Amino acid sequence: MSVCIVGTTNLDSIETPFGKRDRVLGGSGVFAATASSIFSETSLVSVVGEDFPSSHMGFLRDRGIRVEGIEILPGKTFHWTGRYEDDMAQAFTISTELNVLADFQPKVPESSRNADVVFLANIDPVLQLLALKQFHSPKLVVLDSMNYWISSAPDALLKVIKEVDVLIINDQEVRDLTGKTNLVAAIHEIMKLGPSRVIVKKGEHGLMMFNGKTFFMFPAVPLSTLVDPTGAGDSFAGAISGYLAKSMDFSEAGFRQAVIAGTLVASFTVQAFSLDALKEINLEKLSEQFELLKGCVAIPTPLFFSI
Amino acid sequence: MSVCIVGTTNLDSIETPFGKRDRVLGGSGVFAATASSIFSETSLVSVVGEDFPSSHMGFLRDRGIRVEGIEILPGKTFHWTGRYEDDMAQAFTISTELNVLADFQPKVPESSRNADVVFLANIDPVLQLLALKQFHSPKLVVLDSMNYWISSAPDALLKVIKEVDVLIINDQEVRDLTGKTNLVAAIHEIMKLGPSRVIVKKGEHGLMMFNGKTFFMFPAVPLSTLVDPTGAGDSFAGAISGYLAKSMDFSEAGFRQAVIAGTLVASFTVQAFSLDALKEINLEKLSEQFELLKGCVAIPTPLFFSI
Repeated sequence: MSVCIVGTTNLDSIETPFGKRDRVLGGSGVFAATASSIFSETSLVSVVGEDFPSSHMGFLRDRGIRVEGIEILPGKTFHWTGRYEDDMAQAFTISTELNVLADFQPKVPESSRNADVVFLANIDPVLQLLALKQFHSPKLVVLDSMNYWISSAPDALLKVIKEVDVLIINDQEVRDLTGKTNLVAAIHEIMKLGPSRVIVKKGEHGLMMFNGKTFFMFPAVPLSTLVDPTGAGDSFAGAISGYLAKSMDFSEAGFRQAVIAGTLVASFTVQAFSLDALKEINLEKLSEQFELLKGCVAIPTPLFFSI
Repeated sequence: MSVCIVGTTNLDSIETPFGKRDRVLGGSGVFAATASSIFSETSLVSVVGEDFPSSHMGFLRDRGIRVEGIEILPGKTFHWTGRYEDDMAQAFTISTELNVLADFQPKVPESSRNADVVFLANIDPVLQLLALKQFHSPKLVVLDSMNYWISSAPDALLKVIKEVDVLIINDQEVRDLTGKTNLVAAIHEIMKLGPSRVIVKKGEHGLMMFNGKTFFMFPAVPLSTLVDPTGAGDSFAGAISGYLAKSMDFSEAGFRQAVIAGTLVASFTVQAFSLDALKEINLEKLSEQFELLKGCVAIPTPLFFSI
């Protein structure tokens, strides 16, 4: 089945302790669509400027990502310049040139309006809501956001959160959004905002998922080197959406499988700049990584006090 | 088999968002011994002043903890006054009255020198080393420490780390001790200091264990209320030591079981002040909590890309 992703297409200039890259392909929509396309037919709704290299558009097409929904507007492509220091957990924004993104009004092409799974990747929540209204009757709507929108557009963000099935968010954002410092209490609070499931990204500490009743905890792949964390969260969520569109199993078990797939995909994303590692993923590599990680979480039972 | 624990015995005055307690029983040795005694015969080497209530000594004896190694010195018992704010992750020390702890020289009674498992709970590393030398030939030596000793007595700390089998430490301390910000890289670095296994406490994010080859990750019990985090780490490590002395299985599987037991025990400790919840634990309660937590980490396989 199919996924449609709404998000940004960037040219990113990035510096990390491992090097520097200038105007490489990035953006929440691009990372998510690339990850989703590992599993399912994927289309992308986004915007670029006239400067957007045709090689990048060719890359997306070659992966089978449908690009009719990527509008080309007069002007320049969204350009983010950022830096990561030793603590790769935090991105320092040096400059944000919105360019064509400032005038973007997402238009979902007719061919994508029947998507089974809709993923609203990180972008202005006003645009997320505008895009969402254009789909006919998606079976599942997934939403990602970031701290910037919590502080700058809380009303629009709360409005779109109310409309989605699954909210993907990081641990600090859960706390910011609810005003609760205890993460478990904050997650309970989030459920009152509308979604039927929340997936909390905790970076190196893995993830926590809650369906209103049951928690699921899963660790991150232990990595001693992160080359560039950009796009980790976007590819995590994109992989979840793509996996779910393939399985169409929206049960607790189906979601657990999907977030494991997302964890594995994100573990590749951060091991190189831009999409360099993400684009090399195949099912065989995921399978190998899964076997490794399974070994790191295996519980030898029974414990002597087990019932 | 038996455990001997070397650590502090405190009277703690604690304030958290859930209330206030004055001069309640605490200390790294007391929390650890109480936890260890759930599983194995346990003795405690520590020091108290003449003001130490006989009811507290009675409590330890009633649990079957051997107290011959608790020296009673002229003066007052070590008294810690601390406060936790909304973010229960951090204790703010208001005052530390060392009292008799200032003159303490641990003396391991002859009856405890043949302990199979020795746990050097959090205390001055000079005293940890002094105590360790008095044991005949322990099968396993476990060490806990804290940030205070990393900054104030790094040489003594490194000396005792070199002598132990298992180092238990929190994630920030691993970073501080190695100067590495990436946790996985820092854990690799720690292994060069001597221990053959490191267990990293990550509070609400659970634990990470490394034996030089394989990682094990296990989450914390998701709790929406922490009443008093004091003693969580001490009871975690004490339970690990007690579990291992019962199983005497020092393989990777044996350690995985032990740290799961530690996780479960610590999840009770934090749900009440002082030892109020910890002392009510029995194997049936642990078993129930284990079943709950197993449900929160169960992986539905195969994923469709599994080999």
